[in-house]
Amino acid sequence: MNVVTTIAQLREIVLHAKKQQQTIGLVPTMGYLHEGHLTLATNARQENDLVVMSIFVNPTQFGPNEDFESYPRDLARDKKLAESVGVDVIFAPSVEEMYPQDGGIRVRAGRQAKLLCGASRPGHFDGVLQVVAKLFNLVQPDRAYFGQKDAQQVAIIQTMVRDYNFPIELRIVPIVREEDGLAKSSRNVYLTPIDRSQAPAIQQALQLAKRELQETEDVEKALALATKLIEYNTDGKIDYLSILAYPDLTEVTAETDQILLAVAVYIGKTRLIDNEIFSLKGAMAHV
Amino acid sequence: MNVVTTIAQLREIVLHAKKQQQTIGLVPTMGYLHEGHLTLATNARQENDLVVMSIFVNPTQFGPNEDFESYPRDLARDKKLAESVGVDVIFAPSVEEMYPQDGGIRVRAGRQAKLLCGASRPGHFDGVLQVVAKLFNLVQPDRAYFGQKDAQQVAIIQTMVRDYNFPIELRIVPIVREEDGLAKSSRNVYLTPIDRSQAPAIQQALQLAKRELQETEDVEKALALATKLIEYNTDGKIDYLSILAYPDLTEVTAETDQILLAVAVYIGKTRLIDNEIFSLKGAMAHV
Repeated sequence: MNVVTTIAQLREIVLHAKKQQQTIGLVPTMGYLHEGHLTLATNARQENDLVVMSIFVNPTQFGPNEDFESYPRDLARDKKLAESVGVDVIFAPSVEEMYPQDGGIRVRAGRQAKLLCGASRPGHFDGVLQVVAKLFNLVQPDRAYFGQKDAQQVAIIQTMVRDYNFPIELRIVPIVREEDGLAKSSRNVYLTPIDRSQAPAIQQALQLAKRELQETEDVEKALALATKLIEYNTDGKIDYLSILAYPDLTEVTAETDQILLAVAVYIGKTRLIDNEIFSLKGAMAHV
Repeated sequence: MNVVTTIAQLREIVLHAKKQQQTIGLVPTMGYLHEGHLTLATNARQENDLVVMSIFVNPTQFGPNEDFESYPRDLARDKKLAESVGVDVIFAPSVEEMYPQDGGIRVRAGRQAKLLCGASRPGHFDGVLQVVAKLFNLVQPDRAYFGQKDAQQVAIIQTMVRDYNFPIELRIVPIVREEDGLAKSSRNVYLTPIDRSQAPAIQQALQLAKRELQETEDVEKALALATKLIEYNTDGKIDYLSILAYPDLTEVTAETDQILLAVAVYIGKTRLIDNEIFSLKGAMAHV
């Protein structure tokens, strides 16, 4: 495995791969790798000749009061883990290498960034789009891998790829779950035993809403059912529970194809998120 | 020559060229081709295997009171001219093909867009960056050709390529001039004989300022000399006369390498622009 820290080194590797007609898969990360990242890399390994993982804690997506400085970093450990799943190249640039100067040009996410998790993180998705656009242009991948767990991030990046015609296929890797359906998260360790016993209700609520939606296409009813299930089966507080068109994150209409059903719930002090993305039309066709 | 109007057709051509390891040159235009465009295409022809010219009057770079609807269009004539200089592919999409939907993501030019010609055209350069980013991703050129005449446009696109790491070489094609130095422009036909006799003073003023700058590095003095020359030798009104670092369009400092010397002058009722881009350090090294 090759670990490079400069753009010049990365460009050389990419150029060489392109000359050999190799396909390139990109796995963008902020490092401190967990199972989710490794699943992305494993998928990339199966579908591409060259797998590039970027490890870069991107300052422009952190708010002034967020944890950029204290965000955990462990490149030595990340290297071992990445190598174990067949990553070919780690691109781990410094902040100075990625942002040596600033001409002031910005990518601005629009209305999509004001909803869901974006409501409390102004500017966050602008920073995400900035670094993702840079990584896309640097690595020029055929496919880029993102986890469905961060559904809003995926929706906004999908929209950028679509509206700006990036020649890249986004591969959205499904959420990895515990046996009882709870979405895996590094935050799950904060759950008390009682919290933990209540947490699977989140996924159950999404499944209930999904079924209701596929059978009746009644958004309000689906939302009401899921809300009730969470309220009855947990002591949690719902931050948001939304049904939106994917990837535009607009209201669902008769023309909507893909649906995003997304939820964030505080169980005790721990904020858990989960989502389902599915085709309404495809589902209806089965009925 | 191949004329395509859909993104699918263009993608196929680009994919085929990439598979053949051909280099691609892009000449972005809004059509109604003149000598300047043909010079860009001729340069592209010499340096690339495949030359793609886009012809697209981009609505997003026109202000609400500007002339998008009445902007001249003549694809039949453009085809003949493009073919005569060896263009391989014309990409002439409809507005619907380029903007079939809008997820609300925008590229925003920063402080660079507020200066010079941008001061009176809010949002113009945002629209330019949007369409140029799309064209770069669609055509995936090795080189893209722009005329130096629109120096601010070139500076802002150069900055986007640099700060967003587009894997593209910008080729800035020098201004074509009349024998007496006047920059060629379709607007020159509006000049009266007296206007026309005064107009070469614009280029003379830039040359004077350039020499002064190279000898003394004194920005204020260079500006004062050029202003005087224009005031003494024309009845014109200076819109702006600026010396800035290129491509950032910031103030010139001891670290500045490339200089943009740009001017806009009303001669009679006709607004003429001209500029020089040169290396101060390179020039000083010669002294």
